[in-house]
Amino acid sequence: MINTVEWTDQGVRFIDQTKLPTEETYVTCTTYQQVADVIRNMVVRGAPAIGVAAAMGIALGVQKSRAETVADIKKDLDHICKVIGETRPTAVNLFWAIGRMQDKFESLRIRPVAQIKQALIEESQRMHAEDIAANQAMGRHGATLMPSNGGVLTHCNAGALATAGYGTALGVIRAAVEQGKKIHISDNMAGALMKQGRIGAIVVGADRIAANGDVANKIGTYTVAVLAKEHGIPFYVAAPISTVDLATADGSGIPIEQRDSKEVTHIAGQQMVPDGVEVENPAFDVTPARYITAIITERGIAQAPFQESLRRLADATAHARN
Amino acid sequence: MINTVEWTDQGVRFIDQTKLPTEETYVTCTTYQQVADVIRNMVVRGAPAIGVAAAMGIALGVQKSRAETVADIKKDLDHICKVIGETRPTAVNLFWAIGRMQDKFESLRIRPVAQIKQALIEESQRMHAEDIAANQAMGRHGATLMPSNGGVLTHCNAGALATAGYGTALGVIRAAVEQGKKIHISDNMAGALMKQGRIGAIVVGADRIAANGDVANKIGTYTVAVLAKEHGIPFYVAAPISTVDLATADGSGIPIEQRDSKEVTHIAGQQMVPDGVEVENPAFDVTPARYITAIITERGIAQAPFQESLRRLADATAHARN
Repeated sequence: MINTVEWTDQGVRFIDQTKLPTEETYVTCTTYQQVADVIRNMVVRGAPAIGVAAAMGIALGVQKSRAETVADIKKDLDHICKVIGETRPTAVNLFWAIGRMQDKFESLRIRPVAQIKQALIEESQRMHAEDIAANQAMGRHGATLMPSNGGVLTHCNAGALATAGYGTALGVIRAAVEQGKKIHISDNMAGALMKQGRIGAIVVGADRIAANGDVANKIGTYTVAVLAKEHGIPFYVAAPISTVDLATADGSGIPIEQRDSKEVTHIAGQQMVPDGVEVENPAFDVTPARYITAIITERGIAQAPFQESLRRLADATAHARN
Repeated sequence: MINTVEWTDQGVRFIDQTKLPTEETYVTCTTYQQVADVIRNMVVRGAPAIGVAAAMGIALGVQKSRAETVADIKKDLDHICKVIGETRPTAVNLFWAIGRMQDKFESLRIRPVAQIKQALIEESQRMHAEDIAANQAMGRHGATLMPSNGGVLTHCNAGALATAGYGTALGVIRAAVEQGKKIHISDNMAGALMKQGRIGAIVVGADRIAANGDVANKIGTYTVAVLAKEHGIPFYVAAPISTVDLATADGSGIPIEQRDSKEVTHIAGQQMVPDGVEVENPAFDVTPARYITAIITERGIAQAPFQESLRRLADATAHARN
């Protein structure tokens, strides 16, 4: 199994996703600033993976802090969280991870500094393990929704590399295959394949899910959702509860990251578009809840009305953790 | 103005579209085999441009023929047409051009060989001029359909380079702009832009239009058509009558070209997909007529039922030529 992100004695180690698929190289960050760069530059990508990376970056920053009092550690922690929080705006798992590390710190305030540092490292490792477990649970829940034979389409990266391991949307497909379902996957020519009746279900991941079930995910997801509706194909979203943002009422409140226009004008370093062309390059779009058949989480499957079903699942998680 | 394809004293000259947009280089073909290669390797692309290229390739081949009798010229002509006809299967303009050059030859059978050669060259040049005129006429007709202000979306190349000059879908947009309409164009993120209300109309070109109005065009066109329907946006096809294939009843009869899988697995010569991944890479898809608001030709605008309206326009062209 490939480790997307891993805590090691040398620092936080990432597989460099900008070099895949031709090179398998790893980057070890020894400072939280390097972890922030790794998130910003998409060496690590995918909302759940970004969440775990942020938690480990915070643990690393606090570990390396020279502060000797809890009050000074808190100051460093706040600064580290600010730097890491400014790397990418859309994936809510980033902010969820920051919040959870801050909560953990609050619960440790009366402990000695060394103990706080160790506990934060352990918390980030726990989040890593929980993410894999959540993906596996999502896979079990979601596999029941997959057709027993036929095409399943996904969009953008929702495999093991987008998470601490196993994958969200691909986790569902993987679990279905483990259950003996025969599934093939395609990622392109979506409309033509659906028209030919070759797609039985669609499963995508998510970067943020609003309280009403609107889903921000890789640009193009909305197009796939419209195609699914036109062809009567079920459209599923697979994401951990940490991707659900109950504080955002609907999709209009989700900030959408604009990426460098060079991602569009250049490919593999080579210019593909004439000079002077203005490019808009949003990284994500929002699919309204009405296009979504069900949202698959580690706690179970949410169905419309999502306002209620998502809150119920989110509360269940909170209770389980307390 | 850039000449997509041009008859010169040295041979048939093409701008090399595989080198655009970074390099403006030209290729001059001195044999019909080279013209066939240029079509097959997409140095020239776009259905109308392919038609003119085929005609000039045939004229070139006949010009260079050493045959001394009309019967032997005919043998060479048939072989040349066979080679050029095997380059690309979907764009019907290729076969339309071959048919027209064969018809021209038949009308010249009683003439001396030198005169036949000259007449075929002139016929290919006439087709070049007619294509530009057709695009300009399409532009005039189609411009009336464009919103007076707002986004217009197109898909794949339907500009001047896809034709002898001016362009099909982009010709319509160009004519609308000449009429003072304010239009901006986008080619990506189609669904998200439509949802934001930023697209007022869609215009695409076509590689072949069946008798019932089903349209083969660059893969992904069908997806855009479904999105247009979902958002209540008019979806127009702009193509010369030579793209209408009355001999093909509906889209199921249109042969769809499969392109080299390297087009998907490699970009700018760099591998983007792991070894061993099987790729299906059709170059075109078929959009059913029910998604199409109108088909813009040089003879006027066809509306549903297309079976009747296309036949009427096609007959008008035939009469005008006879």
